[in-house]
Amino acid sequence: MPSRPGARALRQDGRVAECVFCEILSGERKAHVVLEDPIAIAFLDARPVFKGHVLLVPRAHVPTFADLAEECIGPFFSLAKRLAVAMEAGLGAAGSFVAMNNRVSQSVPHLHVHVVPRNHKDGLRGFFWPRTKYESDDEARDYADRLRAVLDG
Amino acid sequence: MPSRPGARALRQDGRVAECVFCEILSGERKAHVVLEDPIAIAFLDARPVFKGHVLLVPRAHVPTFADLAEECIGPFFSLAKRLAVAMEAGLGAAGSFVAMNNRVSQSVPHLHVHVVPRNHKDGLRGFFWPRTKYESDDEARDYADRLRAVLDG
Repeated sequence: MPSRPGARALRQDGRVAECVFCEILSGERKAHVVLEDPIAIAFLDARPVFKGHVLLVPRAHVPTFADLAEECIGPFFSLAKRLAVAMEAGLGAAGSFVAMNNRVSQSVPHLHVHVVPRNHKDGLRGFFWPRTKYESDDEARDYADRLRAVLDG
Repeated sequence: MPSRPGARALRQDGRVAECVFCEILSGERKAHVVLEDPIAIAFLDARPVFKGHVLLVPRAHVPTFADLAEECIGPFFSLAKRLAVAMEAGLGAAGSFVAMNNRVSQSVPHLHVHVVPRNHKDGLRGFFWPRTKYESDDEARDYADRLRAVLDG
């Protein structure tokens, strides 16, 4: 099926044309694979935050976490846990960072969990800095209420 | 049970003394709770990266992802998914960031998943910058091999 400009064409094998992760999954694009599973694979990020940084990617072209089927959540994050453990056991890292971006800062619109080896004083100030604060307890309560409204629904 | 210096005392209710998340779980410390579940709760981070930033915390005092019981992984990350969706549905965010630090940069040694609302041009360069690169394909293969060695084992 020819791809239309501006559209992501679904190919006959269910993978999505011009998705680099689907290309890795189909074998069209090379990657250093570290884990293969019926529902997902993991491979080295070619431009790592730190060497050994891997991406865990579902075989299905799932765009974001919200699109991951409920029955896949346990098996998928069980693999993420194995990868986090492997950062320490395989690379001697002191810890790990496990993260995903949904939509914003998501470079490839095919769900991927980053698993990154971390070490003390590795120079990473991290995503989690700087922090802000709520103007008042009322403002914090308003944010909590807005989240509860959709979570309780 | 009195706590010994340098030791984290396990209290009779199974919670850990001097763990701020156990204190929130027991009701001793206030927090703006957004979700309560039999296995975990979520509440606002008091010092958010962006307002609405929540922490998802298992009720059991599980130190890191590696310590999370297999049978809890599906239910726990199903809650993380609901929170990621709530960032968009409840706060109008364009996307979300879902992340955990294990050991390094982990401010509280009780597993917590950060779920943070993201918006385009929100000023966050992010954890994922700058990137490095492998010196050679051989070096990348070596990292992949070390990870595979423990993952295949």
